[in-house]
Amino acid sequence: MIDYDLCFSRAARTMQESAIRKMGGMAGRVGDLVSLAPGFPAPELFAWDEFRDVARSVLDGSDPSVLQYGATRGYRPLVEALVQILGERGIAATPEEIMVTTGSQQALDLTARVFIDPGSVVLVELPTYTGAITAFRNAQATLVGVRQNSDGIDLEELDRVTARERTAGRRIAFLYVVPNFQNPTGVLVSLEKRQRLLEWAARRDVLIVEDDPYGALYFDDVASAAETRPIKADDREGRVVYLSSFSKTVAPGLRVAWIAAPPAIAAKLEVAKQAADLCTGGLDQRLVYEVWKRGVLAARLPALRSHYQEKRAVMVRALRRELGDLVSWPEPKGGFFVWAAFPERIDTDALLTRAIAHAVAYVAGSAFFVDGGGSRFARLAFSAAPAPRIEEGIRRLALAVREELDASTTSVSSQSGRSV
Amino acid sequence: MIDYDLCFSRAARTMQESAIRKMGGMAGRVGDLVSLAPGFPAPELFAWDEFRDVARSVLDGSDPSVLQYGATRGYRPLVEALVQILGERGIAATPEEIMVTTGSQQALDLTARVFIDPGSVVLVELPTYTGAITAFRNAQATLVGVRQNSDGIDLEELDRVTARERTAGRRIAFLYVVPNFQNPTGVLVSLEKRQRLLEWAARRDVLIVEDDPYGALYFDDVASAAETRPIKADDREGRVVYLSSFSKTVAPGLRVAWIAAPPAIAAKLEVAKQAADLCTGGLDQRLVYEVWKRGVLAARLPALRSHYQEKRAVMVRALRRELGDLVSWPEPKGGFFVWAAFPERIDTDALLTRAIAHAVAYVAGSAFFVDGGGSRFARLAFSAAPAPRIEEGIRRLALAVREELDASTTSVSSQSGRSV
Repeated sequence: MIDYDLCFSRAARTMQESAIRKMGGMAGRVGDLVSLAPGFPAPELFAWDEFRDVARSVLDGSDPSVLQYGATRGYRPLVEALVQILGERGIAATPEEIMVTTGSQQALDLTARVFIDPGSVVLVELPTYTGAITAFRNAQATLVGVRQNSDGIDLEELDRVTARERTAGRRIAFLYVVPNFQNPTGVLVSLEKRQRLLEWAARRDVLIVEDDPYGALYFDDVASAAETRPIKADDREGRVVYLSSFSKTVAPGLRVAWIAAPPAIAAKLEVAKQAADLCTGGLDQRLVYEVWKRGVLAARLPALRSHYQEKRAVMVRALRRELGDLVSWPEPKGGFFVWAAFPERIDTDALLTRAIAHAVAYVAGSAFFVDGGGSRFARLAFSAAPAPRIEEGIRRLALAVREELDASTTSVSSQSGRSV
Repeated sequence: MIDYDLCFSRAARTMQESAIRKMGGMAGRVGDLVSLAPGFPAPELFAWDEFRDVARSVLDGSDPSVLQYGATRGYRPLVEALVQILGERGIAATPEEIMVTTGSQQALDLTARVFIDPGSVVLVELPTYTGAITAFRNAQATLVGVRQNSDGIDLEELDRVTARERTAGRRIAFLYVVPNFQNPTGVLVSLEKRQRLLEWAARRDVLIVEDDPYGALYFDDVASAAETRPIKADDREGRVVYLSSFSKTVAPGLRVAWIAAPPAIAAKLEVAKQAADLCTGGLDQRLVYEVWKRGVLAARLPALRSHYQEKRAVMVRALRRELGDLVSWPEPKGGFFVWAAFPERIDTDALLTRAIAHAVAYVAGSAFFVDGGGSRFARLAFSAAPAPRIEEGIRRLALAVREELDASTTSVSSQSGRSV
């Protein structure tokens, strides 16, 4: 018998399965489950007709490069489209600063490889996106969390933590932030704080990795496009590596995202991508490019925004009705998630078993915390489930919560009984 | 000014641009260039009509999962198809042993991450596939080359090198081999040697990573399907990690390849892939699956084999005619490449400038050697260029070679002149 554990690298031995992916596995085994776990976009909003039309035309055989190996940087017309897309977000980027990636997860992975040495510190928000945690941990980073306020990361704590880590002799690879409708909290970082973050980064000489998958999905009853202006837009020094994606606005199955970074960093990311997967799929890139070029993407964005805004309202109303006395959350101003805080006595990891018994799933808060915290929280996605299913899911969640509280009361009293 | 060099990880500072990709960049800037450099399949053989047909049907919107995030392991029907495809190659694998990857380059990258610690030894053939070199080097492996004979890796040297590295206290992560029509040499490892390799691996307790992108593309004038039986087919111990791809037989732009490995290793590779890109493109996987299911792939393989076999004959004839007095090569029994040995006085890195001036490109041998050797060799791909262009390319190459020899003679005599 071969002992495979002896064969694995140190990095592999510490790799952990993504909580969200694991949840996907569990979810698949329960009948009639309402999954509020994964941040899936609503597939009925995908531009099916246009994709079919584009696929027919790009697969007519007249351009052999469609199915051939492609440039590592990306399909050139798409790279040029990204110059324009970034421009609309206030970011002046040249093609030399842009690289297409195989989904945003690859952008996180390449960023990790290019900046992180084993033991390097990566500063992250508490909580932060679990896919980023996984990518950075696989590069053997030490993840150090910084508290968030209602308008984003706490700058004083950020500065204190940075000083502390540097005094301890540790190298800080970068600060990772998700300023627009953060995953999982939904927080929108204020414009003023974005400016101060840039000033702080210059003063402390720290790179910023800005992840922006949700910026286009603001809810116009509580937020505006102007409030989503990326930090990168005001980056005069070349200190910000900007990540964004078509997964939430076009379709995640196409695996097309991108990075905008100073030319020296983009060139290094390109070399890293050569070794990672050579190039992103050519057909996928053309489908994305063509729906952009034909104006389909721009035309659909208002509908996407109002769809998610409405489902957010459905979830918030259901939460208020079913769990208003027990659960609180910051109002999501965009994106896909409600970040729910439960009573102290609830541990959302433990609650999950009961929730799944009631055929509803979420992602437990602990998946988003790098400091072992988060057990009172859960991320509830309103993006994929239809409105009636969201309502049903919250109703089931409320049943599970009340059962759990009853059980913990019973268990506390019986323990008290024993201790007397 | 930010000094980005100070920001990069140690791994990033040692990353090198792929020689083949760099060549692609140069090639793009020369008009009328005959590129014998990249191992591109012939795009006129792609199943354009069937892809168009499949795309229309899978994009009809009836199955939302087509464009949604998918399982990290791969689209389940494709995984099950792979059980059958592997079975036809003599490999008995269960779905638990299979993972779809975003091209074979990702399979190499994930394998590197799961097995290689910085400084781990990876044993490779001399020469070996440059994309594997890049992936293993990025994981900071120490690559140790082992000579090849006409029927594959030299087993005595392999054993000697293994003993030497272990005596020096180094950990051997695995042996990487390409037994079928190796890239770049085209060598077909004998069946007897495959058996002996397995016995050696068991005796020395070494894992084998077997890369098999070309196995289906044997040339029936000099080889048979039976001779391509993978090492993995006789792996009773679970010692072989098997990599293969649809890039050469279906289309590389779809980025669909796979790994078959013992369940414990496959599970670890899956966790690594979660962090690398979450999942392989859903549309790409369905296109590959459907052309397989409809029998298109099986029906086309004989045509693919005879197409490449004929172009190999064209290249070999042209080489014999134009450079038969100066260049030698092992007869390719399958795959995409002729591995040409030039006279001692030729350095193929230097020759390349002259070749490109004559509008022909190849990959210099040094890209495939981990020991600094290979300067007499060049890899000439006959896969993508049409037959008349192959002939024209070899004619131009001959001009460049004869000029280079003349120049080196002149330079030697003038140097001799000076030294007197």
